[in-house]
Amino acid sequence: MKAVRVHDYHTDPKIDDIDEPTLQGPLDVIVKIGGAGVCRTDLHILEGQWAEAMGPTLPYVIGHENAGWVHAVGDGVTNVAVGDTVILHPQPSCGLCLACRRGKDMQCVNAFFPGLSDNDGGMAEYLRTTARACVKLDPSTNPADVAALADAGITAYHAVRKAVPVLWPGTTAVVQGAGGLGHIGIQCLAALTATRIVVVDKNPDALELARQIGADETVVADGSHVDAVKDLTGGEGATVVFDFVAEQGAENDAWQMTAPDGYQYVIGYGGDFSAPTLDFVANEKNVIGNIVGTYTDLAELMVLAQAGKVTLHTKQYPLDAALDALHDLDAGRVRGRAILVP
Amino acid sequence: MKAVRVHDYHTDPKIDDIDEPTLQGPLDVIVKIGGAGVCRTDLHILEGQWAEAMGPTLPYVIGHENAGWVHAVGDGVTNVAVGDTVILHPQPSCGLCLACRRGKDMQCVNAFFPGLSDNDGGMAEYLRTTARACVKLDPSTNPADVAALADAGITAYHAVRKAVPVLWPGTTAVVQGAGGLGHIGIQCLAALTATRIVVVDKNPDALELARQIGADETVVADGSHVDAVKDLTGGEGATVVFDFVAEQGAENDAWQMTAPDGYQYVIGYGGDFSAPTLDFVANEKNVIGNIVGTYTDLAELMVLAQAGKVTLHTKQYPLDAALDALHDLDAGRVRGRAILVP
Amino acid sequence: MKAVRVHDYHTDPKIDDIDEPTLQGPLDVIVKIGGAGVCRTDLHILEGQWAEAMGPTLPYVIGHENAGWVHAVGDGVTNVAVGDTVILHPQPSCGLCLACRRGKDMQCVNAFFPGLSDNDGGMAEYLRTTARACVKLDPSTNPADVAALADAGITAYHAVRKAVPVLWPGTTAVVQGAGGLGHIGIQCLAALTATRIVVVDKNPDALELARQIGADETVVADGSHVDAVKDLTGGEGATVVFDFVAEQGAENDAWQMTAPDGYQYVIGYGGDFSAPTLDFVANEKNVIGNIVGTYTDLAELMVLAQAGKVTLHTKQYPLDAALDALHDLDAGRVRGRAILVP
Amino acid sequence: MKAVRVHDYHTDPKIDDIDEPTLQGPLDVIVKIGGAGVCRTDLHILEGQWAEAMGPTLPYVIGHENAGWVHAVGDGVTNVAVGDTVILHPQPSCGLCLACRRGKDMQCVNAFFPGLSDNDGGMAEYLRTTARACVKLDPSTNPADVAALADAGITAYHAVRKAVPVLWPGTTAVVQGAGGLGHIGIQCLAALTATRIVVVDKNPDALELARQIGADETVVADGSHVDAVKDLTGGEGATVVFDFVAEQGAENDAWQMTAPDGYQYVIGYGGDFSAPTLDFVANEKNVIGNIVGTYTDLAELMVLAQAGKVTLHTKQYPLDAALDALHDLDAGRVRGRAILVP
Repeated sequence: MKAVRVHDYHTDPKIDDIDEPTLQGPLDVIVKIGGAGVCRTDLHILEGQWAEAMGPTLPYVIGHENAGWVHAVGDGVTNVAVGDTVILHPQPSCGLCLACRRGKDMQCVNAFFPGLSDNDGGMAEYLRTTARACVKLDPSTNPADVAALADAGITAYHAVRKAVPVLWPGTTAVVQGAGGLGHIGIQCLAALTATRIVVVDKNPDALELARQIGADETVVADGSHVDAVKDLTGGEGATVVFDFVAEQGAENDAWQMTAPDGYQYVIGYGGDFSAPTLDFVANEKNVIGNIVGTYTDLAELMVLAQAGKVTLHTKQYPLDAALDALHDLDAGRVRGRAILVP
Repeated sequence: MKAVRVHDYHTDPKIDDIDEPTLQGPLDVIVKIGGAGVCRTDLHILEGQWAEAMGPTLPYVIGHENAGWVHAVGDGVTNVAVGDTVILHPQPSCGLCLACRRGKDMQCVNAFFPGLSDNDGGMAEYLRTTARACVKLDPSTNPADVAALADAGITAYHAVRKAVPVLWPGTTAVVQGAGGLGHIGIQCLAALTATRIVVVDKNPDALELARQIGADETVVADGSHVDAVKDLTGGEGATVVFDFVAEQGAENDAWQMTAPDGYQYVIGYGGDFSAPTLDFVANEKNVIGNIVGTYTDLAELMVLAQAGKVTLHTKQYPLDAALDALHDLDAGRVRGRAILVP
Repeated sequence: MKAVRVHDYHTDPKIDDIDEPTLQGPLDVIVKIGGAGVCRTDLHILEGQWAEAMGPTLPYVIGHENAGWVHAVGDGVTNVAVGDTVILHPQPSCGLCLACRRGKDMQCVNAFFPGLSDNDGGMAEYLRTTARACVKLDPSTNPADVAALADAGITAYHAVRKAVPVLWPGTTAVVQGAGGLGHIGIQCLAALTATRIVVVDKNPDALELARQIGADETVVADGSHVDAVKDLTGGEGATVVFDFVAEQGAENDAWQMTAPDGYQYVIGYGGDFSAPTLDFVANEKNVIGNIVGTYTDLAELMVLAQAGKVTLHTKQYPLDAALDALHDLDAGRVRGRAILVP
Repeated sequence: MKAVRVHDYHTDPKIDDIDEPTLQGPLDVIVKIGGAGVCRTDLHILEGQWAEAMGPTLPYVIGHENAGWVHAVGDGVTNVAVGDTVILHPQPSCGLCLACRRGKDMQCVNAFFPGLSDNDGGMAEYLRTTARACVKLDPSTNPADVAALADAGITAYHAVRKAVPVLWPGTTAVVQGAGGLGHIGIQCLAALTATRIVVVDKNPDALELARQIGADETVVADGSHVDAVKDLTGGEGATVVFDFVAEQGAENDAWQMTAPDGYQYVIGYGGDFSAPTLDFVANEKNVIGNIVGTYTDLAELMVLAQAGKVTLHTKQYPLDAALDALHDLDAGRVRGRAILVP
């Protein structure tokens, strides 16, 4: 089959002809890929940023945001059958460790992450995953339309869902960064809460989109945005600041925009957060870490998507044009999410 | 192997010589039984009370409260190995449905319940269960010493754990019924909270034991116990009433003992609860259902047990003496829990 | 001033000319009434149903759903000033007992309830309440437009808000009874959650309105409604059933419509709830009591109202026409809520 | 009356003879002081560290950790009467703002802080506070024995109480700093949870005391303590790290000792916390701010204290010896808490 493989860091991947993956254990599932999202993390992989942490043996197939149809199942698989339309949680988990038993899939001590860890990913015709990664979809769903929810989507959804218990009417939530994840986060906030949504971004087009999908207020990130958010909140700041940027100073702006007794949610990454411990104590402020969502987050998000409450902007490329998609993403030419379709 | 089998309802089970169970799926585990608890539910099974709900094909092996050593494992089992000492959650769950993914094992839509559903139980030399039922123990643990925690224990623990977020210092919790489950509940309350523990029981000996293991106050259930609890709580009643009896009127006494904004926890069963809807509204009172605990409840309870914070009174019988154990239980001759040891 | 006073039970109240109320303590507030809701509880008062529980000295002024303008304040009042537009929480609380300190206003041990307890209510030109009952509104608000949120509104909002943490996408909530409270409950559910909303009512017109304000499905309560709800939920029932009826068997229908691990919220009253304790245990089902909402519930609900997310149907009557309003309500001639305007 | 007043920063306070405080509002309470704790914050006040933030007009009376007997009450006070024994929450709150209505006393927008803000404190014979600061005690209580719970106590209790919902059996909690607050925190952890308690401190005597009052493990903070905590937790770190130090690098050690999906609780202050945003994201770790506890925290802590579950080491000084107490504290000569007794 065709697959997009990294052979060396700091150079383009190649489209190779390799063997199809095979079942290796009783819970394994082989999925025929219908759509594979192209993520900024793929660019970071090519730059070698994940080489040390994940240590994949090169060459290997990238692609961690996948949906398609079940092609083969191991003899312990009972939740999906050959032919089912599925979207895939990016990190198959064991189902046996205490973290899994508490529903905390991302803290599974035996998980792997195809396309990121030392396992082939989904920019290919077929992918090996496991039963615990498969969310069954309505058979009429086109996998390419929803693939981006598998990783970008559940990351945004997971953070928003955690914050629901503090976002009652009368509160303000700031979304910093209205890009791929942020614009899903805005829609999730509008669907799950009645908080006032303030969106901060440098890009006026992103803010225009934000207004269409649920933002109550928008603020241009032009250096005066911290003050602007304070002005919108009677000088207090927001109850929750969802920071989808978290680099180049945004991570500390987020802290300034957070109200006493409030929460800064770190979702993006890259920068260094820093604050006096007195700030935490005097105002009882908090910083909350956020990882990719769980399997149930994905299942819930698909309900929102199928009800039309969360929609995605995507641009499809044939699998053969994977390099174009990666280059377009790198050059800022992709509006929404690029999706490879084998 | 030897096994205690029900051949007909309303008559004693027999000790038969039958084939050992075998692995049927990749997640299956065969356990050599070290101890099997004898539960009042076993008497109810013999009386036919579960025949319609569970529909087991007779004859079948009873026993749903088990611990022992791993004897064989399917090829998908990664959490335990042959020789490991284990205690078994009574209801193996699938790990794939949404209830399992949220950590709600008892709501699993694909579970079975050996010894209760149409599957052989643990009053035998060997039992078939699955990987998701096995909690690995310190190898020095004697399974017969802890088996009763597998079902009675986690039922009491589960209810107490759910109530922790409302049982702050200054509150009162009532434990109604200080028998097999109740005396574990008292110890869990003492370990997990600083609430005042009031124990209500008909039996003065049970109340004496209750005082030794954590009760702050005891009340004889002699007809004036509702008033006695009100007197102990300034006329208000308790924040939580754990009703381990829930029959013969206790279920309605519990409601009378529950304070405004309080919670009646139903754990025992047999009676009919009844109250005016106005009672729920005017006082914002609640009735909370409680099922057997989860896998993580069992893991946590084993930590308490191994730290000596929860201890059990048990009386061991050889497997051959199973009928004696059942008869003793039925006649009220068992102090604590009867355990069969093959 | 003019006031609607009950002189005897089982007979119409009279419109009397009485003295205006005066400040009695440093936290007292006198409010010039702009609108006073007419509630089914007022009919129950006239029937003597609250005589024993509340024991008011007759004659006294009814009316417990009030909004208006601040007319005078005690010397300890700092949150409102003369001239402010306010909506009034129905039960002024002390702010000093432990319940108040936890934000549980309705459990205040020193509260009173004008128009219901032995204190004059708001069907009059002026009312005495306290600082802790006053929620300040935008000065442009017409009190008569929002008065019904003061009691009916916060009761519905309070119940919905408590249920938010279990109503994730993919769940179903049933609203039983789409009348005065229920139709606010539907709007609150739509504003605060993405659950699927199923509305059950006998009245096809009420169901038509329900669809317009957020119901996803409607079911006629014609005797087959329990089955209809089960059919809509794969045989399981709903995660939460909000029972705004709770009499004439609805309270037990609600239990049948509640899914395993689900919650029946009792909000209406009048009937007797009854269920086997085994039902609570085997399915881990719960019954949750719900009282009038808190001050912060009222503040939050006013945010929803001012954003247009919760709207009310009202029919205004001059204070002189109070008997017409009461008769119309009793005869089922009021669509939405009747409001008296002095 | 005699009072300890700050006349200038960077110099000793003086013991002056000044007028007794008088009632200024209907909710005011004058308390005859029975014991006033001497806190490290008092030293910081003398060093001028709070001059800018609080801006008191000099001279003024310090002392923010007080207990005594009610001497006079305003005409709106209903919760205490002259002669009652009381402990005082340090920050009287308004009871009217939304923060107060939610039970979040420390976020009150109208509060003052006697002895810290521009209001005379309790190192005197009498203090002016308000009804909402008074927790009524058993009349046999000696105020000097409990005064230190009014500020140090509730700060430690507040942090521990917030963490209870994640500290189940099998988890580990680290207490960093077993001094005045830390040793109360250890006792609260032992009373409210069954977590394993690991205490880290530089001082072997403090660790010895820690073992006596509930520590399961102790670690000398000698530079290898982060590794020691990791060794004790299978390389993972602790679920919660309570950092009572939060300066001189401890605040960053705490982060290293925090497990994935874990929480660093900042309680001490002085240092600067810093971490890559990637750390928050990759491990879903959190930093939680903690301010002084609430009124209900104080009420609950007094229940623990009166049950003997939290005990204090104190050293009493006559009010005239206030300078000795301050000098002893500054020189590290106070074991436990210094208390001034007028």
